[in-house]
Amino acid sequence: MTVVLAIDAGGSHTRAACVDAKGTVLGWGRASGGNATSLGEGGVRAIETAARAAITEAAADASTLTAVLCAAGEAPVGRLGELAERLGMHDSSSWHPVGDALGAYFSGSSAPDGIVLIAGTGAIAARVQNAQVVSVVDGLGWLLGDAGSGFWIGREVVSAVAAAADGRGSPTALTEQVFSRIGGATACWSGVRTPDVAAILRAVYDRPPTALAEFAPLAFDAAAEDDAVAASIVSAAASHLATTIETARRGHENLPVVVSGSVLTEGMLRAGVCAGALLEVLQDADLRPATDGVVGAAILALRRRGVEVSEQLRVTIAEQVELRRA
Amino acid sequence: MTVVLAIDAGGSHTRAACVDAKGTVLGWGRASGGNATSLGEGGVRAIETAARAAITEAAADASTLTAVLCAAGEAPVGRLGELAERLGMHDSSSWHPVGDALGAYFSGSSAPDGIVLIAGTGAIAARVQNAQVVSVVDGLGWLLGDAGSGFWIGREVVSAVAAAADGRGSPTALTEQVFSRIGGATACWSGVRTPDVAAILRAVYDRPPTALAEFAPLAFDAAAEDDAVAASIVSAAASHLATTIETARRGHENLPVVVSGSVLTEGMLRAGVCAGALLEVLQDADLRPATDGVVGAAILALRRRGVEVSEQLRVTIAEQVELRRA
Repeated sequence: MTVVLAIDAGGSHTRAACVDAKGTVLGWGRASGGNATSLGEGGVRAIETAARAAITEAAADASTLTAVLCAAGEAPVGRLGELAERLGMHDSSSWHPVGDALGAYFSGSSAPDGIVLIAGTGAIAARVQNAQVVSVVDGLGWLLGDAGSGFWIGREVVSAVAAAADGRGSPTALTEQVFSRIGGATACWSGVRTPDVAAILRAVYDRPPTALAEFAPLAFDAAAEDDAVAASIVSAAASHLATTIETARRGHENLPVVVSGSVLTEGMLRAGVCAGALLEVLQDADLRPATDGVVGAAILALRRRGVEVSEQLRVTIAEQVELRRA
Repeated sequence: MTVVLAIDAGGSHTRAACVDAKGTVLGWGRASGGNATSLGEGGVRAIETAARAAITEAAADASTLTAVLCAAGEAPVGRLGELAERLGMHDSSSWHPVGDALGAYFSGSSAPDGIVLIAGTGAIAARVQNAQVVSVVDGLGWLLGDAGSGFWIGREVVSAVAAAADGRGSPTALTEQVFSRIGGATACWSGVRTPDVAAILRAVYDRPPTALAEFAPLAFDAAAEDDAVAASIVSAAASHLATTIETARRGHENLPVVVSGSVLTEGMLRAGVCAGALLEVLQDADLRPATDGVVGAAILALRRRGVEVSEQLRVTIAEQVELRRA
């Protein structure tokens, strides 16, 4: 019997599933996350914890398992032998680390060729060919790229509020929303800086830059209620994402496009949000929503074991994983 | 005889001058810089070193000195008593810390009311009234503002090169310039990321974000040679700075405008650079170039001692400081 181990290791949580060739989830495990940009000691321990739970529940013979580890950021390649040993697996060759873009793609499509667009805290598009990523567009991180991502939108939201406060920008409904989120008082000008602008500066510079992503949902809500500043931020973000996906699809417009990440699923692709440029680019696309990264990892692991993964099998795995997540 | 102590403490160097009421620089001292955002232990020691050298050369009676400390970022307010004691000054009340915007303003104008626009690594405009800053525009730092600053331009330069490499952006002469500066090989696509994009990511994320400002001069050079991507970056930066200075001047268009910082003096205000929006906003302004921050600190200190500072006196101090800097 073919059983594989699928793991999705993200910044905030790690999930593992043992899955058979019929798509049945025989075992499930979860643990906290690792670091978002590279899996440190804590990340490796989280992988071990989640994997052990899944293997135990499945009563799987660990020595025969093929494992696909889908991780945002750098995979702990040097630690795979140790992980294999601790879990009773054959050796490090049982482990196959892949990037989160590939996992996201196969969570939404079983076709070996396709495109994936992810816009969460970061933003990246990738083209998949024969189950491998052959090109990426953007995904350059918060300082140089991730154009249109949650970080990008959140930074624009807070910058727009600060610009409105010092007279450069137009008044916006975002001001009250941002102030209430950072716990400042209502804006009141007092000499050189408003106390609230000072509060914004403290709140933002004391935290990692990517924490700005938490302000992104404010833009979608305010844009849906016709706030002009918010609408212009969302529309600019949509243009950036449109360029990213258009570039990734160039010459491959017939391939399915898997979309993933809260900026897309809870933002851009929502009715009433000013995402015209992106919707236009995607209107002729064969769009598929991503499911859980564990699903993609399972499909990649089954493929490695020679299982032909049909769309029906992918749907089955996705449904089973959904039940476990609930 | 009235003698004052003027100090300019920046991120990379600290200068001190003892100046009399005729504008004669009686003593001069220099030391390394403090931290760019707040003066830590090293910054306090640098101030002491530079000040001691200036006081010694001037053979000034330290106990009668009025000192103005002009510092980027937070002044070491809690350490002024200690500094006064170590230097033989009366007490902490002899020290008057001011922000670098005020020092920059008085380095270029002796009028108690005016405007200053600074665009170096950061970007800020301030309005000065009765020798005090009464309002600031932008200056919100690299993550939320400093729109059109050296950091802002440098980030756009490197982002544009990365976007050109992954197909989102147009080819640009900036690519070769950026690659040669970070020591990468010539761009050559190899699978998922070009080695050079990987090199850019390493070079940028391994350093403090504001180090991106070092790429700003590339934009001015390439724009002057009609590179469309560079021209559009410079033009967008100029629009941001135009908004910033326009906001600061609103209702005070008759006041002198002191301009400071390499983005302005070596970039925007240079012939052949696409800074149309900024030039338009400034065309009717009474523009004055800033000189050294020590000059502004000296003028502020003399004012505190009741000396009426004429434009001629400012020019005299600026000339004397220029000789010492050479």
